[in-house]
Amino acid sequence: MKHLIIYTHLNPNSFTKAVVNEVEKISNDIGHETKIIDLYGDKFNPVLEFSDIEYSFMDGEAPTDVKHYQDKITWAEHITFVYPLWWGQMPAMLKGFIDRVFAHGYAYTYDENGPKGLLNDKSVQLIINTGNPNKTLSESGLQASMEKIIDDGVFGFCGMESKVTFFGNISLSTDEERKQHLDSVKNLVV
Amino acid sequence: MKHLIIYTHLNPNSFTKAVVNEVEKISNDIGHETKIIDLYGDKFNPVLEFSDIEYSFMDGEAPTDVKHYQDKITWAEHITFVYPLWWGQMPAMLKGFIDRVFAHGYAYTYDENGPKGLLNDKSVQLIINTGNPNKTLSESGLQASMEKIIDDGVFGFCGMESKVTFFGNISLSTDEERKQHLDSVKNLVV
Repeated sequence: MKHLIIYTHLNPNSFTKAVVNEVEKISNDIGHETKIIDLYGDKFNPVLEFSDIEYSFMDGEAPTDVKHYQDKITWAEHITFVYPLWWGQMPAMLKGFIDRVFAHGYAYTYDENGPKGLLNDKSVQLIINTGNPNKTLSESGLQASMEKIIDDGVFGFCGMESKVTFFGNISLSTDEERKQHLDSVKNLVV
Repeated sequence: MKHLIIYTHLNPNSFTKAVVNEVEKISNDIGHETKIIDLYGDKFNPVLEFSDIEYSFMDGEAPTDVKHYQDKITWAEHITFVYPLWWGQMPAMLKGFIDRVFAHGYAYTYDENGPKGLLNDKSVQLIINTGNPNKTLSESGLQASMEKIIDDGVFGFCGMESKVTFFGNISLSTDEERKQHLDSVKNLVV
């Protein structure tokens, strides 16, 4: 399988990067072709500009960086996003990747029945790291709200099934708890 | 009242800008002191970098741009955000404003009882423009999920009460429908 990992964190020593390393290792062990996009490492520009609108809605050319990332997504059969939860949402860096790369005409279009996803040959997994304990996220209703927006608002809109896993209590967790999260990655990589 | 409008759109001819102009006019008519932050106009950098972490969690100095925006927020008694809905979420530009400016130690802290909002002398209003009809947003459950994240995930966490209004069906609306939205702004500005 062609497996693309999209990773967003500013700190190469973060727990998020440790999860990415584990996903990559297990993916390679299974025998998948595995590629990684490192948005901070690439210094991706997350700000949607007028050139993006011209491309997406006015038959212009895709900006060079957008085309580069779309080619990687086109290649992939399965995509794993790994990122930290900031304010119940993606970091701005990753939000801008969605804003710019998942463009109209590439990731979705409109036909006589309304919006139509164009990436329905792919599946998506998200591993989201957060300081909130899993119990708090779940009981507060925030988890259900976040999953709704990720599923219906983003990936489902593009025709992709998505599966979300939260690794909670990261800020205050013990080494043993972090190790348990990392050990559980092998059950997530398909 | 000291009223800060925070505006996010790349196109100065957008409906979002028309709403901002109306909010500003009515705010001035009421006699509020009114200031505007134009994130695209300011070319705000929405990418949280290590210097932000050093400032927020390691007793470093606030980056110059972050300090500038924090001073405006400190000044304000009421803040109105006006922005378009992209993927059920804020544009990356505005998400990065939250990521960087609403820093630990400025907008919230932790004490023996857990997280504690530090901006509880302010109220927030959000006017969000979207191509989705209001009925679809409401019936799909997306609206409730978005409001949950805005309220509990962002502004409530900082101690602020927030009120959210969606202006729906913007992409396909008639001039008359847009005029009705603009006319309704006078009922939103307090």
